[in-house]
Amino acid sequence: MANPFYRRDVISTRDMTREEMDLLFNATDRIRGMNMQERLSLCRGRVLCYLFFEPSTRTRLSFEAAMASIGGSSIGIASGKESSMEKGESLVDTIRVVDSYSDVIVLRHRMDGSARLAAEVASNPVINAGSGAEEHPTQAMLDLYTILKEKGRIDGLRIGIVGDLKYSRTVYSLLYALAMYRVDVHLVAPPLLRIRRESLYAMDSLSIREHDSIDEVVDTLDVIYVTRIQRERFPDAQEYEKVKHSYVIDDRVLARARSDAIVLHPLPRVDEVAYHVDSDARARYFKQASYGKDVRAALLALMINAIPPV
Amino acid sequence: MANPFYRRDVISTRDMTREEMDLLFNATDRIRGMNMQERLSLCRGRVLCYLFFEPSTRTRLSFEAAMASIGGSSIGIASGKESSMEKGESLVDTIRVVDSYSDVIVLRHRMDGSARLAAEVASNPVINAGSGAEEHPTQAMLDLYTILKEKGRIDGLRIGIVGDLKYSRTVYSLLYALAMYRVDVHLVAPPLLRIRRESLYAMDSLSIREHDSIDEVVDTLDVIYVTRIQRERFPDAQEYEKVKHSYVIDDRVLARARSDAIVLHPLPRVDEVAYHVDSDARARYFKQASYGKDVRAALLALMINAIPPV
Amino acid sequence: MANPFYRRDVISTRDMTREEMDLLFNATDRIRGMNMQERLSLCRGRVLCYLFFEPSTRTRLSFEAAMASIGGSSIGIASGKESSMEKGESLVDTIRVVDSYSDVIVLRHRMDGSARLAAEVASNPVINAGSGAEEHPTQAMLDLYTILKEKGRIDGLRIGIVGDLKYSRTVYSLLYALAMYRVDVHLVAPPLLRIRRESLYAMDSLSIREHDSIDEVVDTLDVIYVTRIQRERFPDAQEYEKVKHSYVIDDRVLARARSDAIVLHPLPRVDEVAYHVDSDARARYFKQASYGKDVRAALLALMINAIPPV
Repeated sequence: MANPFYRRDVISTRDMTREEMDLLFNATDRIRGMNMQERLSLCRGRVLCYLFFEPSTRTRLSFEAAMASIGGSSIGIASGKESSMEKGESLVDTIRVVDSYSDVIVLRHRMDGSARLAAEVASNPVINAGSGAEEHPTQAMLDLYTILKEKGRIDGLRIGIVGDLKYSRTVYSLLYALAMYRVDVHLVAPPLLRIRRESLYAMDSLSIREHDSIDEVVDTLDVIYVTRIQRERFPDAQEYEKVKHSYVIDDRVLARARSDAIVLHPLPRVDEVAYHVDSDARARYFKQASYGKDVRAALLALMINAIPPV
Repeated sequence: MANPFYRRDVISTRDMTREEMDLLFNATDRIRGMNMQERLSLCRGRVLCYLFFEPSTRTRLSFEAAMASIGGSSIGIASGKESSMEKGESLVDTIRVVDSYSDVIVLRHRMDGSARLAAEVASNPVINAGSGAEEHPTQAMLDLYTILKEKGRIDGLRIGIVGDLKYSRTVYSLLYALAMYRVDVHLVAPPLLRIRRESLYAMDSLSIREHDSIDEVVDTLDVIYVTRIQRERFPDAQEYEKVKHSYVIDDRVLARARSDAIVLHPLPRVDEVAYHVDSDARARYFKQASYGKDVRAALLALMINAIPPV
Repeated sequence: MANPFYRRDVISTRDMTREEMDLLFNATDRIRGMNMQERLSLCRGRVLCYLFFEPSTRTRLSFEAAMASIGGSSIGIASGKESSMEKGESLVDTIRVVDSYSDVIVLRHRMDGSARLAAEVASNPVINAGSGAEEHPTQAMLDLYTILKEKGRIDGLRIGIVGDLKYSRTVYSLLYALAMYRVDVHLVAPPLLRIRRESLYAMDSLSIREHDSIDEVVDTLDVIYVTRIQRERFPDAQEYEKVKHSYVIDDRVLARARSDAIVLHPLPRVDEVAYHVDSDARARYFKQASYGKDVRAALLALMINAIPPV
């Protein structure tokens, strides 16, 4: 079987099929089952170059840890302040140069379209690790992998997505990916932060309902996916204060949730999931983060053709 | 023999015994005696995650060099500005996430108690690389190792510690560690910068005398340990100017020091050791820094159980 | 044959001979011909320490990629803001400490003389990756290697160097290196940005002519080497605006250039080479950047004595 990930750019979950997603999850399972020697031999001598022009802890470190776990190494810039972009260099020039230093580029950039642009310019594959308010596809991959592992399946689930849906790029990647499955999606957001209307066309196969409050649906959900209300993307500080406590998952909400529901969050969290929820067995967001390393390791190994697709 | 360092947090030298310290120094000697192949096989595939929320050159690089020298790799954040802490994430959440990316976490943080908190949260071991004004235990480990190698023993020595004793976390870790040995300690500091009274309870087995000037004791000391007077921790700039030149080691002081004394400093130095002292055979602070890599490599190898304890 | 690069500092191209340059290019060719296994075995376990007190993307990443490609690893600081220099530490102390952590130091610093100073202090070799407005010798090495590969020879060529010649350290390293060859050099710069007169003594074997406009010579040049007019080094913003468009390579200029000319640039570029030039077959600046990794890998392998000199 040909490897559909080999030397392929990973820009949007819209570019993927369900078969490819299954293949990625299968590769993740296989990599998790390997001993350290086997893992380390996969990408020995390979180099990942990360370019993070927006700050990040978990995504960058997750990619670095993933690459290290399969024997490769990582170089890059962790913030735009270190780079020649300060001297006025274009993103295109930066990409063209680092393209010759590495086997794969992982880019985070505040501009919509930045990852697509980088992929057009680079000869090696580019992974979008967050482009503007658009997408963050590897987050969606690990989200789905988490649902699969923690719930045993994806099809047939009722999935609530709560919080800032307008500016959260992880939500868009997740919804485009969920559109490959047969799920019921419930979006819970204040009117100001509802999902962008123009994105719905790419999800028309998806059953979506919108709600003003988590209380309307919490008792029916299999998955409660919470997102941060991102202060820095909010146009008005007062509006932020007004809504920030309205979509919080806490004991009161969990008391009404199903006993087999799971709570996910792409992290970082501020206060939209109360800290006391951490000790509830349904909280799986740290497990979700930990799956990220292995899903990304599998993706990298596939892109470099270091493991067979099946 | 069981390995007491295996998967153990290293938060304070108060948690250690003299036997453990001896064991660490023995492992350091063994690692220094290995050829490159042997060393590199110790922690192959292992990952250290450093989280430095306060700036550092030598400690972070020393850990990275130590890990590289035993075949492992390092990922992390070199300053708080790169991280998701800027988005309002708690230290606890950051620790929980990177815990799944790595085998050991090395943390520097301005808050007292930060390392202890991290250790409680993380499933993998945490090394305190500086918590507030409290402690910096691996610095004390390399300090003692340096004394052992350069003086041949620790017991029976007269050890002077000079400078800012109030705010210097390295001094506290060193004093707690020295309390395991039979040494005479002479603390030399201006009244404003004397050692914190509440710390003395953990050193009550230690013979301590306090002095206002290095001149009172310099002719009797085996070890002259100098610390920086840290401008950034000083409440008042004028007070800083008044004391900063009062505890300087220079030719005048060295002329009265024993010919077999050694001068140590945790570095970075500003002007508390005059530059002309560098060429004096008694200056050992750069050698001290160089021992740091091997002591930390031994500690990491023990924590990962990559070498037997004896 | 003895290896003249073994444990040698690389501070200035003035310190090199043509034979050494040939030897480096030969080693580069050999390394490019190796398979991954061979390359990775060269510097396994070796550590490069980079200290970049001025921002950089390509030089730092090029060195890290070079080191990774020959099996070594890199540690360091990517900007002065992360480091203990903020606590008032001297460059000399920083060098002395990291010297014991690594096998080679790569330094970029805004001060003239910084690399020479570091080399005097360090026991391990130091590579100058940019010292003030003085030199950037590894850039010149890859420049010459590019000319050799893309034009087949260096001797006998007519080489134009265009732009800010006064403040561009890459130009000085390149000119000192070109002085080992029999080439005609044409310098094209506004009067304010002409090459520093005091540097000419080290190039007196070189045939140099100076011009006010690229139009005077473009039709005769084999190599058009363009440099950025560095805004941050310019004393007056208005003067910058006046000259910045005067030395631009665009379609109008290329129409008069030889069909076998090549256009080089040390990068980053701002607007001194028009973006539409990228698609002209004569544009070789991205290829030039890509050669940098292999030239630096060869240099590092020679300095560590990991490959024979011939």
